[in-house]
Amino acid sequence: MDLECGSQEPVKQGLLARGWLKIKALSNNVKAEVFEFFRTLRKLGQDDPRRVVHSLKAGLALTLVSLFYYYQPLYDSFGVSAMWAVITVVVVFEFSVGATLGKGVNRGLATLLAGALAIGAHQLANLTGRICEPVVLGFFVFLQAAISTFARFCPKIKARYDYGLLVFILTFSLISISGFRDDEILELVHKRLLTVLIGGSTCVIISVLLFPVWAGQDLHNLIASNMEKLGIFLEGFGDEYFKMSEDGESKEGISLLQGYKSVLNSKNNEEALANFARWEPRHGRFQFRHPWKQYLKIGALTRQCAYRIESLNGHLHADIQAKPEIRSKIQSTCTEMSMESGEALKELSMAIKTMVKPFAADIHIEHSKSAVKNLNSLLKSGLWDDEPNLLEVVPVATVASLLIDVVSCTANIAESVHELATMLNFETVEPTVLRETEPEI
Amino acid sequence: MDLECGSQEPVKQGLLARGWLKIKALSNNVKAEVFEFFRTLRKLGQDDPRRVVHSLKAGLALTLVSLFYYYQPLYDSFGVSAMWAVITVVVVFEFSVGATLGKGVNRGLATLLAGALAIGAHQLANLTGRICEPVVLGFFVFLQAAISTFARFCPKIKARYDYGLLVFILTFSLISISGFRDDEILELVHKRLLTVLIGGSTCVIISVLLFPVWAGQDLHNLIASNMEKLGIFLEGFGDEYFKMSEDGESKEGISLLQGYKSVLNSKNNEEALANFARWEPRHGRFQFRHPWKQYLKIGALTRQCAYRIESLNGHLHADIQAKPEIRSKIQSTCTEMSMESGEALKELSMAIKTMVKPFAADIHIEHSKSAVKNLNSLLKSGLWDDEPNLLEVVPVATVASLLIDVVSCTANIAESVHELATMLNFETVEPTVLRETEPEI
Repeated sequence: MDLECGSQEPVKQGLLARGWLKIKALSNNVKAEVFEFFRTLRKLGQDDPRRVVHSLKAGLALTLVSLFYYYQPLYDSFGVSAMWAVITVVVVFEFSVGATLGKGVNRGLATLLAGALAIGAHQLANLTGRICEPVVLGFFVFLQAAISTFARFCPKIKARYDYGLLVFILTFSLISISGFRDDEILELVHKRLLTVLIGGSTCVIISVLLFPVWAGQDLHNLIASNMEKLGIFLEGFGDEYFKMSEDGESKEGISLLQGYKSVLNSKNNEEALANFARWEPRHGRFQFRHPWKQYLKIGALTRQCAYRIESLNGHLHADIQAKPEIRSKIQSTCTEMSMESGEALKELSMAIKTMVKPFAADIHIEHSKSAVKNLNSLLKSGLWDDEPNLLEVVPVATVASLLIDVVSCTANIAESVHELATMLNFETVEPTVLRETEPEI
Repeated sequence: MDLECGSQEPVKQGLLARGWLKIKALSNNVKAEVFEFFRTLRKLGQDDPRRVVHSLKAGLALTLVSLFYYYQPLYDSFGVSAMWAVITVVVVFEFSVGATLGKGVNRGLATLLAGALAIGAHQLANLTGRICEPVVLGFFVFLQAAISTFARFCPKIKARYDYGLLVFILTFSLISISGFRDDEILELVHKRLLTVLIGGSTCVIISVLLFPVWAGQDLHNLIASNMEKLGIFLEGFGDEYFKMSEDGESKEGISLLQGYKSVLNSKNNEEALANFARWEPRHGRFQFRHPWKQYLKIGALTRQCAYRIESLNGHLHADIQAKPEIRSKIQSTCTEMSMESGEALKELSMAIKTMVKPFAADIHIEHSKSAVKNLNSLLKSGLWDDEPNLLEVVPVATVASLLIDVVSCTANIAESVHELATMLNFETVEPTVLRETEPEI
């Protein structure tokens, strides 16, 4: 027995120790995850401090509306309907003014319309008698839910009125089936509408007055910064590509250029922002009927350019590279094409940001176009007679051809930015620094 | 007077006639728009008849839940709380099972958690006395709304629990501030939870039992059909590109190949479907923990390939084309590369669709790789000595180089499909039609 006991004790202790270690490891894991989570949250706040402000605004709006419950005179007049003001604030309050306004208008109009229709349906069902009434009401609810749900699939409706249709289904169902007497139902609709209006306008007022976030401004900045990202890549590409052949690979430089990747998938973001922006009133330099479609057009052209850049980027990582002596023949023209179109994109981005006519970009585009001409004549020349091995030439030729595509993409972007400048009467500011034209003076 | 009257009469008539014309034109316009709207709706239904079915299902779910109001014994036990079942159905019922389940689970858990916390907050506030109570409650509402709103910015939380946080804010606010007595608040939470569960389970049951739409199946099909679209382009590209040099442009053929464009922007769609699919239980050939991440990986590689194809497509429209005699030198190898990688993609797509190991695709990939080798040796050969004008060669060289990229992209896609096949134990079916290997037999 003693022997057994003696042999069990260490086993027990070993189990205990192992269990303790496991618990410790688990708690360390949990600690690390919680720490990681808070680090993510802090980064979210640092990346865009407006997020913190928005959260505080949402808290404020909700607290304000909950006064309905605390302040007796208000509660007496609205009663349980005050709930709808709270619900409205929670679901309507969005990050940008446009989104909040859009949802608020959708909710208000849908409540009004659905309330009116529901009263009609209720009256009509009343006429059919006590037994038929639920059947008729059920049929109405089924019909409107099916039709409205189907209408939500329509892309145009989905983009602007999706939330309105949801509220329409909700309000119509709730009011038509509530089964109250006629005068009660009128009062219900009246109270519902009033509380929704109070909730909605609280959201809109707070969203507009306290540190407003304009979707239009965000779209404006997004389009400009996307262009800038491509510009940064193109400015660095020439050096990076031709340097690699000289002193091997330079991974650091390449990773600095990868900012353009986000442009490839920005379509949905741009469209959402444009949809919100359409709801926004005049603010700063943006009017109510600002040409948001033109922004989307510029965004699409920028993405076209980004696809070419994605192909170019592949050549930075390619295993097979052309011989240095072949590269060096077109190094200067290719670098110029890349550099000039990069600078053009950065100037266009700056022109949009500052709302100034993009004259400075035009000069860079002219330069990049003349670099294309130089390249063409270089390719036509007999410089390549000593290179019968076309395999060595193909990678360089591809890079050159992609850069020619990029130059024409950039010209298209510039054209659409000019259209925007005309639409919005951008300021005319002659470029003060004309580095490139100095020799002509 | 008479004279004046006489001169006014025709003017009046003219105005009337013009007014009538205007009204007629307007009514015609309205007619045309209404007609157009219904045409859009019909097309939506024809494109995906599941949309019609979904609308009917939504109507059915709502009508079922509204029984709470019509059926007296049910109404007696739930009263106005029955409203929450209706609200739950309207907001939770989504197109796919995964989305419905995700929202239902979110709503249920959030209501439970928020209800419990709200009772706690209510008790705590009660302790502070009559005057302090609203201040303490207001502070709690502000705090939880601000924190939850901020947490919604976290991408990981947004993807899966966005709706849960919204319901959390809503339920916590509504219950904590409702200002009832303690026993009443317990009953409120209990009823709320029960009605939400009833509403949610109605949605889930109808969504699963009646013509279910599985997000997982949709993602599966989307990935496969995206691959197929690229395959169709590549199969047609060779002919289209080299035919153009012979008998001018063929716009019709080109427009048939533009199906791949939708692949460029399918990222958001794929990610949303994957998020929904994670909620879905085992169905058909899909398990609960199906490797949806691998699908996203395949989707990303397919998009990489689509970017190259976008560049290739630019060459179909290019103004400057190489001379036919230059093209003809590499026509057969380029057409083979394009055709074989196109067929490989179509076979891969078919392999995913039928969940069969992609052996047939491997053969095509081998063929495309050997075509690349042939091209390389063709480029190395002295065949080009008589072409000192490199400008003529550049477009062809670019197309060749892009096709080489496409071949390597296709190989990457094939590799990741093989990984998927291993993960899911795809069936092993030896390809019955080995057209390409017949000569060897």
